Amino acid sequence: MSTFKQQPHKLLVIPGPIEVADEVLYANAHPSMSHMSADFVPVLGDCIRMTRDVLYSTTAQPFIMAGSGTLGWDQVAANLVEPGEYVLFLNTGYFGEGFVDCLRVYGAHVDELQAKFGGAVPLSDIEQALASKKYKLIACTHVDTSTAVLCNVKAVAEIVKKTAPDTLIAVDGVCSVASEEIRMDAWGIDVVVTASQKGLGTPPGLSIVVASQRAIQVFENRVTPVAAYYASWKKWLPVMRAYEKGSAAYFATPPVNLVYAYRASLDRITKSSPTLEERFTLHREASKRIKDAVAELGLKQLPVDSNSSANGMTAIYFPDGFTASDIIPRMAQRDVVVAGGVHKDYKDKYFRIGHMGISVVDKERGDVEKVITALKESFAEARASKIV
Amino acid sequence: MSTFKQQPHKLLVIPGPIEVADEVLYANAHPSMSHMSADFVPVLGDCIRMTRDVLYSTTAQPFIMAGSGTLGWDQVAANLVEPGEYVLFLNTGYFGEGFVDCLRVYGAHVDELQAKFGGAVPLSDIEQALASKKYKLIACTHVDTSTAVLCNVKAVAEIVKKTAPDTLIAVDGVCSVASEEIRMDAWGIDVVVTASQKGLGTPPGLSIVVASQRAIQVFENRVTPVAAYYASWKKWLPVMRAYEKGSAAYFATPPVNLVYAYRASLDRITKSSPTLEERFTLHREASKRIKDAVAELGLKQLPVDSNSSANGMTAIYFPDGFTASDIIPRMAQRDVVVAGGVHKDYKDKYFRIGHMGISVVDKERGDVEKVITALKESFAEARASKIV
Repeated sequence: MSTFKQQPHKLLVIPGPIEVADEVLYANAHPSMSHMSADFVPVLGDCIRMTRDVLYSTTAQPFIMAGSGTLGWDQVAANLVEPGEYVLFLNTGYFGEGFVDCLRVYGAHVDELQAKFGGAVPLSDIEQALASKKYKLIACTHVDTSTAVLCNVKAVAEIVKKTAPDTLIAVDGVCSVASEEIRMDAWGIDVVVTASQKGLGTPPGLSIVVASQRAIQVFENRVTPVAAYYASWKKWLPVMRAYEKGSAAYFATPPVNLVYAYRASLDRITKSSPTLEERFTLHREASKRIKDAVAELGLKQLPVDSNSSANGMTAIYFPDGFTASDIIPRMAQRDVVVAGGVHKDYKDKYFRIGHMGISVVDKERGDVEKVITALKESFAEARASKIV
Repeated sequence: MSTFKQQPHKLLVIPGPIEVADEVLYANAHPSMSHMSADFVPVLGDCIRMTRDVLYSTTAQPFIMAGSGTLGWDQVAANLVEPGEYVLFLNTGYFGEGFVDCLRVYGAHVDELQAKFGGAVPLSDIEQALASKKYKLIACTHVDTSTAVLCNVKAVAEIVKKTAPDTLIAVDGVCSVASEEIRMDAWGIDVVVTASQKGLGTPPGLSIVVASQRAIQVFENRVTPVAAYYASWKKWLPVMRAYEKGSAAYFATPPVNLVYAYRASLDRITKSSPTLEERFTLHREASKRIKDAVAELGLKQLPVDSNSSANGMTAIYFPDGFTASDIIPRMAQRDVVVAGGVHKDYKDKYFRIGHMGISVVDKERGDVEKVITALKESFAEARASKIV
């Protein structure tokens, strides 16, 4: 075991990238290895297996490649939807809009159910839409990082199974995997799109997509050619299957060091204490502590309904007369880095705090306390500065 | 400055990934940083500027994103070629075939000039093809990693300028950038596609593409929509321009740690001794030493013509009666990791050695000597084992 310690730095609590453990960063500094070597093959194999575990699946097919979360949208759009097919999208923010754009680039006809800013899409609207038209795919953003809105994926899946059982269910879990529960097999989710730098606790640079065997079947039965090259599962499926079985195969060079880092983080998440279930509890508890502190400060939060509120992040409106420059620099002076808003109409009206991964799981770090203290001090100072 | 030292490991001399310097690996273990922060913005900005420098350009536009070299093909195919347009491709191996496949996925009509295995495409054939039809783009693999064939990009560009000056020139430089000279501005090259893990001396995971302003103009004047989402320059161009100017912009999360690592490596390549010119000389010298040693062992090499021979790698036929298992494990026993063949018809008939980056530039490492010694010993031992 290494004694590597990362450099001192400000606490990063934006909603991704998140703080990364020393041993994960150390793995990211692994000496160069051949991507085809017997040493590396089981490392990627382990990542494939443990990614499946994080989603409580025994049969789904992970795809792990160099890219960002965004590339996962291309994978869904180019591999699962054929031009002219219909998609129903539950749009809860900026990242929903991106996913919809991407689906349209590859030829999907997308009907959007647009939530009010800070709200979720009512389940009754979803049921009605599914009953009105045959959709190839329904998709949503599990946690839209722009609004902190949590989509009730389990309830959505139940409606789909009842109303339109042939419709594939795709979930953008970039800001939810490993911080929110997702049970792919039990709930019948067909695709989860994610990335390395949020709940999965690894530096950014891995596009991670997991597809059910039903989705793979639909992909294999498609009539039109896959509409992308790098994002094509035709290319990646044999590669992923080979690495999991213990032999190398080549399509494009995997980001070897990030794969070592990802394995180090997955080892923590799936094979050590706390368990995955306990991790979700820890995320809920930390979230409640931060949200309670925010409420105590008299601040309004974005998701109006606490049932639609993410457990890995909090979005907070600035009080009247306050802007980002009153708060964010004051947090930074206290060595706490938070994020501004991101939404075409509202971005200057709120800010965001991430609380995922080691910042909530390793309580000894004291990150949650540090965030709350910095919030209290920053608002006190900002409020005092307004009184002239 | 850190005193970080990477773990002891076998010398990696496959034609990419290559050995990575301690300080570059240490940068890859940088603490998590916000991709939108004032700390990170100039890091990506520096990478953009220095990438341009490596290609001797003052005006070309770099694109740096999470991905592999392969994603660069998507960028060329989806942004620069419109469906139904003609592309002339100089195919010198496995990676040429991949690039052609990719162009076709996005709707290009590709005419291939297919070189003999281990050979380059005769310049007269290129001139004739360009005169016979109007091509939107001519493309080649600068060094095809499967064959070690070096395309004479400068001579090709001269023919294009003379015969078909409107035709864009795209070069796959994944296995050549920073190990072979490329003068984008002087030679009139429009696109160079590359990746982090070869001559650029960084772990794999960055897709790096550089486009001339003429290519950007062609892109901006396209009539049909860009046929991809993640690979779309419509999305990336404002982001790259913003970071270079010193402000953050968002499309997809950049692979922050790899960007730190890439900057550390570019600092070495473009800002410290030896100069870029001296680096190319060092690559040529190391290549000659290895190729001479191979010839002394009585072994046949792949590029028949030494003028078409890469300076960053060597491809060597097994002698009659020998296979990969006679040589590659013996090299590994001597802590030297080389690569097998990769070509649909010939992959079992040869093996490949990479000699790029610090392995040839930092002479004190003694990597070239180690490779030559291991080669001599492995062949001597293998030959002795055949005499019963």
